[in-house]
Amino acid sequence: MSDLKVVVIGGVACGPKAAARLKRCNPHAQVTLIEKGHDISYGGCGLPYFVGSTVKELKDLMTTSWEAVRTPEFMKETKDIDTLLGWEATKIDREAKTVEVKDLHSDEVRVLPYDKLVIATGSDNFKPPIANIDAKGVFGMKTPDDALAMQSYIKEHGVEKAVVIGAGLIGMECAEAYSDWGVEVTVIEMQSWIFPQMLDKEMAAVLQNYLESEDMNFMLETKVEAFEVDDEGKVCAVVTDKGTVEAQMVLVAAGVRPVVKLAKDCGLEVSKAIIVNEYCQTSDPDIYAGGDCVMVKNLVSGELMYAPMGSTANKQGRVIGTNIANGNVETLPGVVGTSIVKMFDWSAGKVGLGERDCQRLGIEYATCIVPGPDITHFMPGKKIIMTRLLAEKATGKILGVQIVGPGRLDKRIDTMAVAITMGVTADQLSKMDLAYAPPFSSAVDNLLVAGNVMKNTLDGMAHSIRYYDVLEKLDSDDVVFVDLRTAHERAQKTLPAKHQIHIPIEELRARANEVPKDKEAIVFCIFSTRGFEGQLILEQAGHPNVKFIQGGIQFWPFDKDAK
Amino acid sequence: MSDLKVVVIGGVACGPKAAARLKRCNPHAQVTLIEKGHDISYGGCGLPYFVGSTVKELKDLMTTSWEAVRTPEFMKETKDIDTLLGWEATKIDREAKTVEVKDLHSDEVRVLPYDKLVIATGSDNFKPPIANIDAKGVFGMKTPDDALAMQSYIKEHGVEKAVVIGAGLIGMECAEAYSDWGVEVTVIEMQSWIFPQMLDKEMAAVLQNYLESEDMNFMLETKVEAFEVDDEGKVCAVVTDKGTVEAQMVLVAAGVRPVVKLAKDCGLEVSKAIIVNEYCQTSDPDIYAGGDCVMVKNLVSGELMYAPMGSTANKQGRVIGTNIANGNVETLPGVVGTSIVKMFDWSAGKVGLGERDCQRLGIEYATCIVPGPDITHFMPGKKIIMTRLLAEKATGKILGVQIVGPGRLDKRIDTMAVAITMGVTADQLSKMDLAYAPPFSSAVDNLLVAGNVMKNTLDGMAHSIRYYDVLEKLDSDDVVFVDLRTAHERAQKTLPAKHQIHIPIEELRARANEVPKDKEAIVFCIFSTRGFEGQLILEQAGHPNVKFIQGGIQFWPFDKDAK
Repeated sequence: MSDLKVVVIGGVACGPKAAARLKRCNPHAQVTLIEKGHDISYGGCGLPYFVGSTVKELKDLMTTSWEAVRTPEFMKETKDIDTLLGWEATKIDREAKTVEVKDLHSDEVRVLPYDKLVIATGSDNFKPPIANIDAKGVFGMKTPDDALAMQSYIKEHGVEKAVVIGAGLIGMECAEAYSDWGVEVTVIEMQSWIFPQMLDKEMAAVLQNYLESEDMNFMLETKVEAFEVDDEGKVCAVVTDKGTVEAQMVLVAAGVRPVVKLAKDCGLEVSKAIIVNEYCQTSDPDIYAGGDCVMVKNLVSGELMYAPMGSTANKQGRVIGTNIANGNVETLPGVVGTSIVKMFDWSAGKVGLGERDCQRLGIEYATCIVPGPDITHFMPGKKIIMTRLLAEKATGKILGVQIVGPGRLDKRIDTMAVAITMGVTADQLSKMDLAYAPPFSSAVDNLLVAGNVMKNTLDGMAHSIRYYDVLEKLDSDDVVFVDLRTAHERAQKTLPAKHQIHIPIEELRARANEVPKDKEAIVFCIFSTRGFEGQLILEQAGHPNVKFIQGGIQFWPFDKDAK
Repeated sequence: MSDLKVVVIGGVACGPKAAARLKRCNPHAQVTLIEKGHDISYGGCGLPYFVGSTVKELKDLMTTSWEAVRTPEFMKETKDIDTLLGWEATKIDREAKTVEVKDLHSDEVRVLPYDKLVIATGSDNFKPPIANIDAKGVFGMKTPDDALAMQSYIKEHGVEKAVVIGAGLIGMECAEAYSDWGVEVTVIEMQSWIFPQMLDKEMAAVLQNYLESEDMNFMLETKVEAFEVDDEGKVCAVVTDKGTVEAQMVLVAAGVRPVVKLAKDCGLEVSKAIIVNEYCQTSDPDIYAGGDCVMVKNLVSGELMYAPMGSTANKQGRVIGTNIANGNVETLPGVVGTSIVKMFDWSAGKVGLGERDCQRLGIEYATCIVPGPDITHFMPGKKIIMTRLLAEKATGKILGVQIVGPGRLDKRIDTMAVAITMGVTADQLSKMDLAYAPPFSSAVDNLLVAGNVMKNTLDGMAHSIRYYDVLEKLDSDDVVFVDLRTAHERAQKTLPAKHQIHIPIEELRARANEVPKDKEAIVFCIFSTRGFEGQLILEQAGHPNVKFIQGGIQFWPFDKDAK
């Protein structure tokens, strides 16, 4: 057969990967990569780390592991791929099987024939309709140019206060980057808690409590109404429905939107983003698509969703390259909604469904929270992580996990990503043969403990109460709180509860009758190990209504406002 | 029913866990815990870290997370468990359903009736028949007393040189601990490489190469014949079939043997260790057993094996406690042979089958090795890890993984433990939705890359050659080595190959004809990314016989002896 002509539109993540994989599988294919910007194949997720100076040069985001910069020359010499840099694809003609492209510099237009086409047009920042959004000092974060402009602005204008609109991944990573420059940051979020896509309410409250200790400010359930500008046209304040915030710089991180105009205009099936099958093929079998411009299947819920991620884009690129070369032999079944973020010395990650997903889907679910040290408690350097599981009541199947804390949690998220992809139950999770040596974990790792606690919960043996419900009851005369910790622990931190007695766990059997049976008893400790034991001891002593605080008070998030 | 009487023999890991879980599930059970030593419920795996002073006090290994020491009083007050400390179980009468126990101090004998019995008698060190093995300065590592004695001996006798016999987990962890005291350590191993249970030959060679750089000495394929003692009866040298080694101290870490006499004497089914079903029940339905004295099922091979691990003992304890309380409702299907070790600044871990297992079982398998940074290559602080996969040729199912290196690999081992437990294939592995943000991994994590490389291998697209085979060919006149790296990289490290040409990957397409077609071509780079690309380019240029070095030369382990 004559050589296969392939045009790839989009040169950041999915596009170059598809092109390179295709050339490995079929060296005779003629591949042309179209990129309207002036960089190809850069690590976009690294941009906030350039803004914060963790990454010293933008070039570092564009190099291979052997420090070769991925220029058009590199793509040609090493991979035999032609690149049109600074060219935009303007029209797809599916009948003629051509793509019209335009040189953004010279306005030259060419029409490229294709046998197979790849659409990897990515996403654009959503620009909400706010007055003065184009003022100087108002930024979005998408390209290396954005990162460079932001960093220059901070340096040149001596920015002291910044506002970030949107407490999602990109907004928060940039907020940390600004803090690295000594800028005071206020994050404004329309929803009721931070990282609303990633975390449930309690977990977000715990993380927010930490971030406030790092001097980050938050305004939740707040709507931005306008930007105020000074005489020079520079932003100087953000007007919200809850007041005006001074700021010499603003990041609008209100989410991204898939770039689907080309796909829509040529009649491909598009919902919020382009619809592809598990071969990454659009409704036209000769056109493949991947990256931030396509919908993906959530393997837990079965729903199609829009979840743009660099990691997924890379997988899609490989699948597309293989399938164009060899026919549809490789699939990407979907994702499990994994995400992760580092914030100062803490991390937070998530896999699967959150509480609102479960509610929306009408799934009956149980939750548990298990805090504990990330390595054996007797080893130096241990730090705490807090693991929250959601499981389906009927089957015990793990639906979701969230972990936050200062301890190492990233690969525990990965472990759960595999577990949730494979549909494991709480029981199966608790039996996993995870690696144990004291420098790495406890003999029973946090994830296994979480599996066991979930089993105790599903079996009806563990009765716990959640932070926000505890908060409601702190002042109640119908509730008695029982602190099961040592006097030493109690001296360091207390819960501001109206009716409270202190009975160390070792004394609880002997002193169970001191806990009045006519009140609801809420027992607690640091991690809820003693809490659960205490609940059982009081129940055995005939107490009719005992619960332990889910997750203990290690990360009790309401210290400051004490409700 | 009248209260259930349960006797638990063994107070270290499985026993106390079984007792505590049982009491949580059935508060009315009368539980007696028998321990012949003078400590209960200690973190045995932490003992080497006490020897090396990472853990400051032995007490730390015996405390809860809230620093309560697990004494008999604690067990009684908190858990309502009776403990006989310093008592040994001497006989089980299955007909009468009694256990005879003896106070090792007073020789008092009691006969305890049981409804259900738990055998958690653990393991003893294997003591090989070596002359003078009872000399002063010769140690085994099993109990807190052993650890204390060893540490005292190092301090009191100014030990300068030590020998460790056995390059398995315990021996090597102690070897590191001795090094922490400035002791020069020689490790003697009968088999051909270190960590023979955990690592395949190449991986062990890479780790050994690093450990030698940390001044550890190794004698492999070496048999110890005798210990020499001085006038005071203290060990002063180790005599082997390869010469005599000076040593003021010796650790015999030649493996452990299950303690099964009680079980055998009362007629329970015992092979190497006690046979239990997945409910952790012995051949007598009223007797359960767990921990270091039982066989476990390897879920990958389906074989019963002896694999004593603290993590497994804890799981078995929980299953036993639940099942005695509630009938046989909980199972432990088995393990996947996970193990992990920290050695100075490196780690090594393993899940599933090794190469020798595959050979023994007659499984046709493929291997690949993928080195790469543990976080995105543009982030500071990245370190390298090297991942080796074994997969079944017929199905692509992942049979085993080994990872070594200075980078973070512990939870990647966990991720693979879940993957291998669930029977994932290389293709499924490569599609896992692992968490990506630059501080935590690359956009395509090492494990996913390993899945992809394995797929390329199984598909017949990637042709690689392994370290030991490369070693054989370094001097061959029939082979040409092609270094695909930059001049800068090449200046830092080379391969001592007789016929070698340097063509950076960017130039290979243009200069492919410089590689003689009448010789076998072996291409290489650092990580084998360019190696694979180079193989494809040369094949496309018509070269009939090209391979890349599996795993690149990043961790080429034969620097010193240069074959």
